[in-house]
Amino acid sequence: MYTRPIMEINLTTICENYTFIKNHIHPITATCVLKNNAYGLGIEQIGRALYDHGCHTFFVAYGCEGQQLKQVAPNSCIYVLQGFGEEERSFFQQADLIPVLPTQLAIDNWFKNPANMQHPAIQVETGLHRLGLDLNEAKQIAHLPVSLILSHLACADECQHYLNEKQKNTLLQFKSVFPNTPFSLSASDGVFLGRDFHFDMVRLGAALYGINTTPYEEKKVKNCVKITAPILQIKTVQAGETVGYSATYTVKRPTKIATVSIGYADGIFRNFQENGALRIQAEHTIFKAPVIGRVSMDNIMCDVSNIPENILNNTQYMTLIDDFYDLDAFGADCKTIGYEVLNNLGHASRYERRYIK
Amino acid sequence: MYTRPIMEINLTTICENYTFIKNHIHPITATCVLKNNAYGLGIEQIGRALYDHGCHTFFVAYGCEGQQLKQVAPNSCIYVLQGFGEEERSFFQQADLIPVLPTQLAIDNWFKNPANMQHPAIQVETGLHRLGLDLNEAKQIAHLPVSLILSHLACADECQHYLNEKQKNTLLQFKSVFPNTPFSLSASDGVFLGRDFHFDMVRLGAALYGINTTPYEEKKVKNCVKITAPILQIKTVQAGETVGYSATYTVKRPTKIATVSIGYADGIFRNFQENGALRIQAEHTIFKAPVIGRVSMDNIMCDVSNIPENILNNTQYMTLIDDFYDLDAFGADCKTIGYEVLNNLGHASRYERRYIK
Repeated sequence: MYTRPIMEINLTTICENYTFIKNHIHPITATCVLKNNAYGLGIEQIGRALYDHGCHTFFVAYGCEGQQLKQVAPNSCIYVLQGFGEEERSFFQQADLIPVLPTQLAIDNWFKNPANMQHPAIQVETGLHRLGLDLNEAKQIAHLPVSLILSHLACADECQHYLNEKQKNTLLQFKSVFPNTPFSLSASDGVFLGRDFHFDMVRLGAALYGINTTPYEEKKVKNCVKITAPILQIKTVQAGETVGYSATYTVKRPTKIATVSIGYADGIFRNFQENGALRIQAEHTIFKAPVIGRVSMDNIMCDVSNIPENILNNTQYMTLIDDFYDLDAFGADCKTIGYEVLNNLGHASRYERRYIK
Repeated sequence: MYTRPIMEINLTTICENYTFIKNHIHPITATCVLKNNAYGLGIEQIGRALYDHGCHTFFVAYGCEGQQLKQVAPNSCIYVLQGFGEEERSFFQQADLIPVLPTQLAIDNWFKNPANMQHPAIQVETGLHRLGLDLNEAKQIAHLPVSLILSHLACADECQHYLNEKQKNTLLQFKSVFPNTPFSLSASDGVFLGRDFHFDMVRLGAALYGINTTPYEEKKVKNCVKITAPILQIKTVQAGETVGYSATYTVKRPTKIATVSIGYADGIFRNFQENGALRIQAEHTIFKAPVIGRVSMDNIMCDVSNIPENILNNTQYMTLIDDFYDLDAFGADCKTIGYEVLNNLGHASRYERRYIK
């Protein structure tokens, strides 16, 4: 008998996703985005795997993440997307991190009192209206040593969106200001918009982890996450009884339910209860058990009445996420996107994590 | 200049919430539920604070959590709500944890090959239909040494709900089976249903952390969490331009926006964008800056056009959560409950965490 849910993370698949895109954009540099603990999946394990696989340029969001990464990816070049914060000075010093600076003030601060000898990257505004200097501001700092000019697309997951062209053309205007500096525009979703979106470097985050960044056509990368959770109890509930918090679900006929050891504390969104199901794969068939009642903090109840007894008796774990029902599908059933569900699942602290090589 | 968001966790407030309920239920035992890393807020810090404050009985969900807790709360009695899993045997051994067992099979397993000398707790089914033995099953194990009989209310946050009485009366039927064993029914939300819901022990989770467990009347506990995040850039966006991913927000008139360094990677739900605002408190006034465009992984953009320039110029951090806009309010704006948002915020790895005593 077991109680903890299991998260399997396939490092080989992550490296295959990397290689697939690297080959697609060849000879442009493919870098990896490992911010937020590699989207929650483990910056040390994934950083080491990608480093060993040949990636030596990374992006993280904060200095604390960069310092962790540097320990498994020595001699690599690590950019910090949220820029340089004074509270992170020691991380920048220890790991020789490169800040991505978004404002004149941030640039002034860096050059007045840099944390290391790295030339910063500069973020420029091309239409996302999030972070970055506009063209006039960029001209003011054109004389400074800069390692990379970076911008970010707003609508790259819609290949026909007018903003894609507009942002690319706006970025090209910065070429006259920084004629000898490498440029980067695209993240995972920009990769498939065509060569002229690649500039000198693309930054691969979501696609590494198997999230579909080309929803307008067939998915190009492979799922790398599997989540299963043990059944703690199977019981029959009589008609008229209710299941779960707030008694939102009333049983219509005698119903066999399984209580599974996973809940919203493990990053399963509470609103998964509206569309969600857990699954058992056996004898080449996938049996679905719809979630009934509310997802609670540690448990989910599901209706297993339609699963043959011999199969149920031989089942210890039910499946939440796998290649047949991936992060994108789970995200849609939680009324959000694969990116958000991955971050939430990845953060959760109680999974028994297994890294597959 | 700073870049990382900050989470302040007030340990004194948590202890005050504990004392308030402890006094309310006196002389019944008040225990603390620290599962899921104390709802993400830090099992070591909160466990130590509550232990020093006089709490010596705790509940966690898994053995791994119990073992962590034991290190800061020695000589305490720690129950493991999800029961005993073979994969957690070493934790149960090292920390002398007490499993809460929900099935005959789990009870058989424990007594055949126990991980320690503790008498297990038994979970019984009274109407939540999640985990636990029914009355007939309980009679089968009445001869075994048991330390606690536990059940859980489904609708305790609705003080008039018919299930409350029904569950309490169902639990009373188990008294004849286990006449000399302590009983526990209520968690935080059962505390205020009246003396006859307290039995021998109540289990305080959500209320400790300032979540409102009496939505039918005035909130009785105090908020213990404050979240602030630094402004990375302020810029003016022209009419007709869009802000954020998928260009969902179009600016109608020249608008001053602030880009704040916090996002869904930090547990801010993406759907906060629909109702959410960030705030600045200055000169005894709270200024609200509505979220515009999509919440992204690391950043939120908000409209600061209506905030006076002198105040904006003196502001480095904006506020997400505090005593004036607490976890329940945030949960409602994310279309869920305070419990879920707390777990998600608490898991997030990039906050600079400050424990206030």
